[in-house]
Amino acid sequence: MNEEFSIRRYISILYRYGKSHIAKRLESLNIGSGYIFLMTLYRQGGISQEELSNFLKMDKGTTAKAIKKLEDEGYLIREIDVNDRRAYNVFLTPKGLDVIPKIQSAIKDWERIITSGFTEEEVYMSEQILYKMAENAANFKVEDEEN
Amino acid sequence: MNEEFSIRRYISILYRYGKSHIAKRLESLNIGSGYIFLMTLYRQGGISQEELSNFLKMDKGTTAKAIKKLEDEGYLIREIDVNDRRAYNVFLTPKGLDVIPKIQSAIKDWERIITSGFTEEEVYMSEQILYKMAENAANFKVEDEEN
Repeated sequence: MNEEFSIRRYISILYRYGKSHIAKRLESLNIGSGYIFLMTLYRQGGISQEELSNFLKMDKGTTAKAIKKLEDEGYLIREIDVNDRRAYNVFLTPKGLDVIPKIQSAIKDWERIITSGFTEEEVYMSEQILYKMAENAANFKVEDEEN
Repeated sequence: MNEEFSIRRYISILYRYGKSHIAKRLESLNIGSGYIFLMTLYRQGGISQEELSNFLKMDKGTTAKAIKKLEDEGYLIREIDVNDRRAYNVFLTPKGLDVIPKIQSAIKDWERIITSGFTEEEVYMSEQILYKMAENAANFKVEDEEN
């Protein structure tokens, strides 16, 4: 079995380099890899800390630590859930919302780096292929949980 | 700027679902996400704990914790570096080597899931595109460090 030429391995390399590159580009914001949480909150609106953790497949401890740091820096607030007083809902603050364009720009920059030398058609194809793969992954996950 | 259709985001989704799926498939080995370390040691041979941490872009604490768990389970051993007595070199044990085919099979299974519905040509194209992206990422990283 040849693991040298592996889709999983490339995805893993791209994920790790990307995370490190984007975090470095955003160093002045003092959020580390926290941009992942801010982008998720931006897209999903206010969600609970537990949902955030499940959604990002990160353990609760890592999520709690990251959320605490982002809260201390003023990028988000946590509010006790009115229906479940043990749960927290998390929201972007105006300061959090303010940095979204910077994060998006760092992401676009990174995407330009990894698609450098690609034709426009190849970039489009890359998006299509990755979209299909992500859909397969998400659909399988749902089936998996239903069984 | 549209972040909805983002290469980075799909890679991130694929990475997270993949990690979670493969770890679940390997649950009986009691290694969690440790398969990532075992596969890296398998490909790279014995390397130092610090190199492992740099290579995987994981912080030293996370690496140390994972290595400790894998050592306790008997999958790897750490030896003090003869040239630098503060450093550890890490090696797979025969037990560690034994589980590599199981990990590879879980990885191939995952790759089949995310490429389900793809033609053979599309699978090939996916590998090519991801390979080129990973190369771009690695090359940029090197240039970045040289400056």
